[in-house]
Amino acid sequence: MIASALPTGVDEDRVGAMSAALLSLGDRAGRELARGSIDRIMIQGEKGYVIMTSSGEEAVLTIMAKPNAKLGLIFLDIKRASEALAKLI
Amino acid sequence: MIASALPTGVDEDRVGAMSAALLSLGDRAGRELARGSIDRIMIQGEKGYVIMTSSGEEAVLTIMAKPNAKLGLIFLDIKRASEALAKLI
Repeated sequence: MIASALPTGVDEDRVGAMSAALLSLGDRAGRELARGSIDRIMIQGEKGYVIMTSSGEEAVLTIMAKPNAKLGLIFLDIKRASEALAKLI
Repeated sequence: MIASALPTGVDEDRVGAMSAALLSLGDRAGRELARGSIDRIMIQGEKGYVIMTSSGEEAVLTIMAKPNAKLGLIFLDIKRASEALAKLI
């Protein structure tokens, strides 16, 4: 975990562990199903979204959003943040 | 696996296994990160998408799409297919 800004009651370690597990399995699934290297993993639940996006070669940006968030706007914000992060790392 | 329509060279069992593993982990992540029950899991790779959507209580619809596919249209088609499937099962 490089940095985090999470709501009260959400454990940083828990988010890190879930991100790592999902990325690992997503990467495997991407290879097995010939989707190439993974750019993004999204989980949409009834209470909101978890979206993981690769940022450069060595970092991953994980965001959580409410269920009424607009996906197009989130993806745009993530893309900008991810590009800014990739330059920093 | 209830039914499948896959391109040549893509193994049905492999898709089933990856879907089951991702759904199981996605469900866990959804609970751990307070996103509620899972409606959809999407993996975006450089060579395309894998999208899993729950269809009713007991079935899951997994689709694979090319990288140049339009997400909005895919989501619309998935929603319609998922509702039609839910009625059949």
